Amino acid sequence: MLFGSIEAGGTKFVCAVGDEDFRIKDQIQFPTTTPEETLGKAIDYFKQFHLDGLGIATFGPIEIRTNSKKYGYITNTPKKGWHDVDFLGRMKAEFDCPMTWTTDVNGSAYGEYTMATLANEHLNSLVYYTIGTGVGAGIVVNGQFLETQGHPEMGHVYLKRHPDDLDFKGICPYHGDCLEGLVAGPTFEARTGHKGQDVAADDPVWDIMSYYVAQAAIQTTLTLRPNKIVFGGGVVNETFLAKIRRDFASLLNNYVDVPDLEHYLTMPLMANNGSATLGNFALALKAYHS
Amino acid sequence: MLFGSIEAGGTKFVCAVGDEDFRIKDQIQFPTTTPEETLGKAIDYFKQFHLDGLGIATFGPIEIRTNSKKYGYITNTPKKGWHDVDFLGRMKAEFDCPMTWTTDVNGSAYGEYTMATLANEHLNSLVYYTIGTGVGAGIVVNGQFLETQGHPEMGHVYLKRHPDDLDFKGICPYHGDCLEGLVAGPTFEARTGHKGQDVAADDPVWDIMSYYVAQAAIQTTLTLRPNKIVFGGGVVNETFLAKIRRDFASLLNNYVDVPDLEHYLTMPLMANNGSATLGNFALALKAYHS
Repeated sequence: MLFGSIEAGGTKFVCAVGDEDFRIKDQIQFPTTTPEETLGKAIDYFKQFHLDGLGIATFGPIEIRTNSKKYGYITNTPKKGWHDVDFLGRMKAEFDCPMTWTTDVNGSAYGEYTMATLANEHLNSLVYYTIGTGVGAGIVVNGQFLETQGHPEMGHVYLKRHPDDLDFKGICPYHGDCLEGLVAGPTFEARTGHKGQDVAADDPVWDIMSYYVAQAAIQTTLTLRPNKIVFGGGVVNETFLAKIRRDFASLLNNYVDVPDLEHYLTMPLMANNGSATLGNFALALKAYHS
Repeated sequence: MLFGSIEAGGTKFVCAVGDEDFRIKDQIQFPTTTPEETLGKAIDYFKQFHLDGLGIATFGPIEIRTNSKKYGYITNTPKKGWHDVDFLGRMKAEFDCPMTWTTDVNGSAYGEYTMATLANEHLNSLVYYTIGTGVGAGIVVNGQFLETQGHPEMGHVYLKRHPDDLDFKGICPYHGDCLEGLVAGPTFEARTGHKGQDVAADDPVWDIMSYYVAQAAIQTTLTLRPNKIVFGGGVVNETFLAKIRRDFASLLNNYVDVPDLEHYLTMPLMANNGSATLGNFALALKAYHS
């Protein structure tokens, strides 16, 4: 069997085909330009194959309520040209196979959930945060997404401000100092005048950021009590994650039982941002069998 | 049929029996003293009836993982004498009927979910916050509780501090200024020197508290995207709820679609704290049929 995966990001599309064991058989990527051109490239690519299923994980916000007339649309995104684009409908017009439709971070969450299951971790639930240009999160509970009214948007929660960061207003155009406004990649330049890759690992800004990310992990912990929280995205590295674990322990103050933090707050199992592609394959396989 | 309900609070126990239409047939309440005496009174009460099922919703924290040796226990509660008490085991030793075991707030969430369903609201998910002596929350998604590793403890999340409240350290013994530390009933006296019932409805302390509760509702909204968030407990009233709605709208800034706030952020449908009893009846009926 052959399954397709579209990981649609605001900067680039990654399209891949894989088999029922989730092995990648072929893969391409191209920049995200206009919907017409970009979706057209994806369609041309997949027409080379006979797909048994297609998983789509995309930047958002998107409409995931199946009873909505706009189910399958990218909705009120600030990305130019992509407002109210019927992404799923465009694919359905071209391919006659089961399709799945979710957010990029839900796709990554499902990929990490699948990978952990393959690695015999026996997870019931997993949360995936990406911290990059923006901040987003996906949730899997008992193999399902949590999306009654819409998909998670936990990048925009409010947090207790760090005492050394009270003057920073945050960069979220909607909320100022929500999580995304305080820890997304561009905050490096907003705080320090330097791009993230030029900020030293021992710069105190990392301690400010870990304080916020730790609080987000505590919110998730106290709400969902998940088995694991995974952090992906360009801002995350093991040194930063160690600070997040330190602040998580200090702020939670042993209030509830959590797994060993080395296993609870982790980097992705899949290297090179491969989580969403794996997640799409697994979702497409599930759709094929359902 | 006849179902039993135990709503076990830190101050009092409410025991009731009801039929399969959730009509209360009999009810008593008594103070929470020692486990021996209090559970004994509950047992004596239910021995008058032939129960087809028993729902238990209790103060916590409790062990809800069925694979734990302490499943059915109240665990590390600060309440004197109640640490590591095998509440469910004590009941199982006396009664031979299906039993359900969850937190007081999950019981209330399930009661409100059931009541809304009976009222044709067609909910998929509901969150119930209680704001009283402490702050807790329960979650129902598609008729199920979310409790992989443990039950929700969203009373202890951190929040952005109100600019007029920065000097208040909060009263949570674990976290200081977490949600419970900032808005639980005893914060009235800690902030103003007056008990809650003596604080005027136009006192600015209500605006400080609504700022925090609104942020908690935003966290819940962005994480779970529920259909409804219900606020119960002694601190909540319609005037306060109007302030919560105001701050919720302002802080969320239309970032995601939510239902009309009058229907989204509400007081309980069940009057007189009856949510948990109804929830226990409904849970016991479900256990009976499963």
